[in-house]
Amino acid sequence: MFVPGLIERKRDGGALSAAEWRDLLAEYEAGRVPDYQMAALLMACFLRGLERAETAGLLDGMLASGSRLDFAGLGRPVVDKHSTGGVGDKVSLVLAPLAAACGVAVPMMSGRGLGHTGGTLDKLESIPGFSTQLSLDQMRAQVERIGCVLIGQTPEVAPVDKKLYALRDVTATVECIPLISASIMSKKLAEGLTGLVLDVKQGSGAFIADADRSLELARTMIALGEDRGCPTVALLTAMDRPLGRACGNALEAEEAIMALKDEGPDDLRELTLAEGVEMLVLARGTGGQGDGGTEKARAGYRKELEQALTSGAAARKFQEIIEAQGGNPAVVDDPALLPQAREVEVYRAPRAGRVLEVAPRAIGRAVVQMGGGRQQVDDVVDPTVGFVISARPGDKVRKGEPLASIFARTPADVELAHRALDEAITIGEGAASPLPLVAARVTAKGVEQLA
Amino acid sequence: MFVPGLIERKRDGGALSAAEWRDLLAEYEAGRVPDYQMAALLMACFLRGLERAETAGLLDGMLASGSRLDFAGLGRPVVDKHSTGGVGDKVSLVLAPLAAACGVAVPMMSGRGLGHTGGTLDKLESIPGFSTQLSLDQMRAQVERIGCVLIGQTPEVAPVDKKLYALRDVTATVECIPLISASIMSKKLAEGLTGLVLDVKQGSGAFIADADRSLELARTMIALGEDRGCPTVALLTAMDRPLGRACGNALEAEEAIMALKDEGPDDLRELTLAEGVEMLVLARGTGGQGDGGTEKARAGYRKELEQALTSGAAARKFQEIIEAQGGNPAVVDDPALLPQAREVEVYRAPRAGRVLEVAPRAIGRAVVQMGGGRQQVDDVVDPTVGFVISARPGDKVRKGEPLASIFARTPADVELAHRALDEAITIGEGAASPLPLVAARVTAKGVEQLA
Repeated sequence: MFVPGLIERKRDGGALSAAEWRDLLAEYEAGRVPDYQMAALLMACFLRGLERAETAGLLDGMLASGSRLDFAGLGRPVVDKHSTGGVGDKVSLVLAPLAAACGVAVPMMSGRGLGHTGGTLDKLESIPGFSTQLSLDQMRAQVERIGCVLIGQTPEVAPVDKKLYALRDVTATVECIPLISASIMSKKLAEGLTGLVLDVKQGSGAFIADADRSLELARTMIALGEDRGCPTVALLTAMDRPLGRACGNALEAEEAIMALKDEGPDDLRELTLAEGVEMLVLARGTGGQGDGGTEKARAGYRKELEQALTSGAAARKFQEIIEAQGGNPAVVDDPALLPQAREVEVYRAPRAGRVLEVAPRAIGRAVVQMGGGRQQVDDVVDPTVGFVISARPGDKVRKGEPLASIFARTPADVELAHRALDEAITIGEGAASPLPLVAARVTAKGVEQLA
Repeated sequence: MFVPGLIERKRDGGALSAAEWRDLLAEYEAGRVPDYQMAALLMACFLRGLERAETAGLLDGMLASGSRLDFAGLGRPVVDKHSTGGVGDKVSLVLAPLAAACGVAVPMMSGRGLGHTGGTLDKLESIPGFSTQLSLDQMRAQVERIGCVLIGQTPEVAPVDKKLYALRDVTATVECIPLISASIMSKKLAEGLTGLVLDVKQGSGAFIADADRSLELARTMIALGEDRGCPTVALLTAMDRPLGRACGNALEAEEAIMALKDEGPDDLRELTLAEGVEMLVLARGTGGQGDGGTEKARAGYRKELEQALTSGAAARKFQEIIEAQGGNPAVVDDPALLPQAREVEVYRAPRAGRVLEVAPRAIGRAVVQMGGGRQQVDDVVDPTVGFVISARPGDKVRKGEPLASIFARTPADVELAHRALDEAITIGEGAASPLPLVAARVTAKGVEQLA
């Protein structure tokens, strides 16, 4: 294999074959292709793009580098969800137990905080004792026993993706739709799913903010999933403001627990149910042909999910998961057992007017700076810090009215948080124009506008 | 310095400032910026391009990384020439002594064979004992003493260029006009020149084959030179066929010696004189204003150069250089002292007709494969192998007429050489349409078409 020749072809707008991607990734993973050649190739991919067929070849090469789970003997549908990442997005913590409580097997492998966004693993690890590092065998056993597992990417799954991702992170080659799509799908398809729901974020807090490009991202991932026998559906959802009220690991875990008891914020409940309906549709079908049948089935699934919240079944499932993974299940009954911040302060409206914006990037960056995320790869995350923001775009507020609570380690960080909220929350005249919470549903068949 | 931010800016079509290039290259040379980040940046440069001002910043950063010679105290013009590389191009071996014999100081640092092209250093080293590795102090002393030195890039000169070039070579980022221009000019401007003549090749055997792009390359290098106080002129010359007859290191050294005695092939003589006139113009001026004065001065310089060939002055200067650099000066009187190939065979025309093409790439590649160049960076070059090709595009040939001699190490390589000549030499009907030997003269003022 003459690697400069492959780089040259990509550089000049050509494509690598599936066999070339497979061999190249195998050699790269084995350390026989150096990082600098892969970096040049990734930049050429970023700037020249990859067609669908080539993206599929890249994905297959990544899948070939690792193990894939097989739940064929489980006798149950195996469906997962994945979000492209946002601020305050704790849906996974609510939805995975909820779907499992409704009989869906959910073998969820998640990631850590990245840039300004939080990560499911960091939120889960704010629960005392909770371990997200399980072996593939332990993972499989737990899914068989209680229907759900919430862990990090195991070393056996798409190991080359891990290496590629680390390289992309330091070579400015992250925000590339084919590379993002292959990376996400290489992990999700390794889970042995029978269906996958994607939450593709739009708006200023999303990695791919632009609506057209987020739709392209959704379509690319759907095509990759469908072609590999995993029916995939995407919802395009709002990330022009934080989701829910809590931003910060333990604060989000607490909000997720509240949502599992049906006591969470409305937008978190709505998005969880919307994604839950898609999971049940993938798990069981729509119960009939035509729109009427479909809508009826959807309404039934929604009711079933709502009942699992109100009955306590979803919360109990989360307790089972926590217990199985070494955590203290009592946090579900008493969220005060979650670690608590040293400094707590109220942020008040600096002026009267209408809340025009709550900018998620400024919020997410502040959480990281306060110690709630990583600035260096080996930083230790403080689970206690963050925000609970009650102000929503469109709210009319009085001067001095409490808009948020700040949770911090030090008075200096409280100051930092104040400044971040000053920057993030725009109060002015006129009307706010937030994005619809769920803008569209995308499948292999097309796009259905929902708002 | 946040390197991913610089890569991202270049990736998105922005530019790095001169200070950013300088700091980045210093950190890279010191090993504090890894190759993989530089590789991603180079690919972004390749695909996004660099404007003139940014190319100048890159060049200045490269110059800042190393030492620069200063011949201000020499009291003589210091002029060098550089070719962008071709097959059979031994002009430097003839022109450097010739210009020195005419009173120009020529501190020439050259390179080795690259890809399908030969390198001046490899040709010089075919002379028994000749050393191309001198220190900067030795180099300066020899220029002061005999007016010419023919060496390789010393470690003090543009060291970051060496590191960057090695990286570009394995990451498919070589053929990029701003990167080529900055690389060449970083070495040439470090020589402390008062003038520079560039031989920019066009045609299928050139690295940049396309006429428009080779003009762009010439203009970029000229602008870089002029802005840094080094008047620079370029000739656009033919590389759609080998230059002269000999291709291969000792064979080319022999042909250069013949040319120094005015017994070489016509095209080699013509190109050497054309470049020599430009060197003398840069060294002494054109002797007056307006075209008439200029043309008269040019004619005078040409005569002076021709006399240095016929009088033996140029050949004696080459002997002085060889002696100063440890080689056997007797090769000038007796080229048979150069190393001789084991296998010599004649290649005959496989059919009658007109020679339509002698393709330089096929010839150059065959020389490399026969051991006359490097396929791996540490390959040892065999000086004896190569071709002497008498057939020229446009020649009418009879079947069985000798067209070339093959010089090889083994009978197998003779076979390889036969196949290469079959591929390289096209005999057919109709007219050949070779490029003009010297198509144009390019200066900061504009392009003068010469053919």
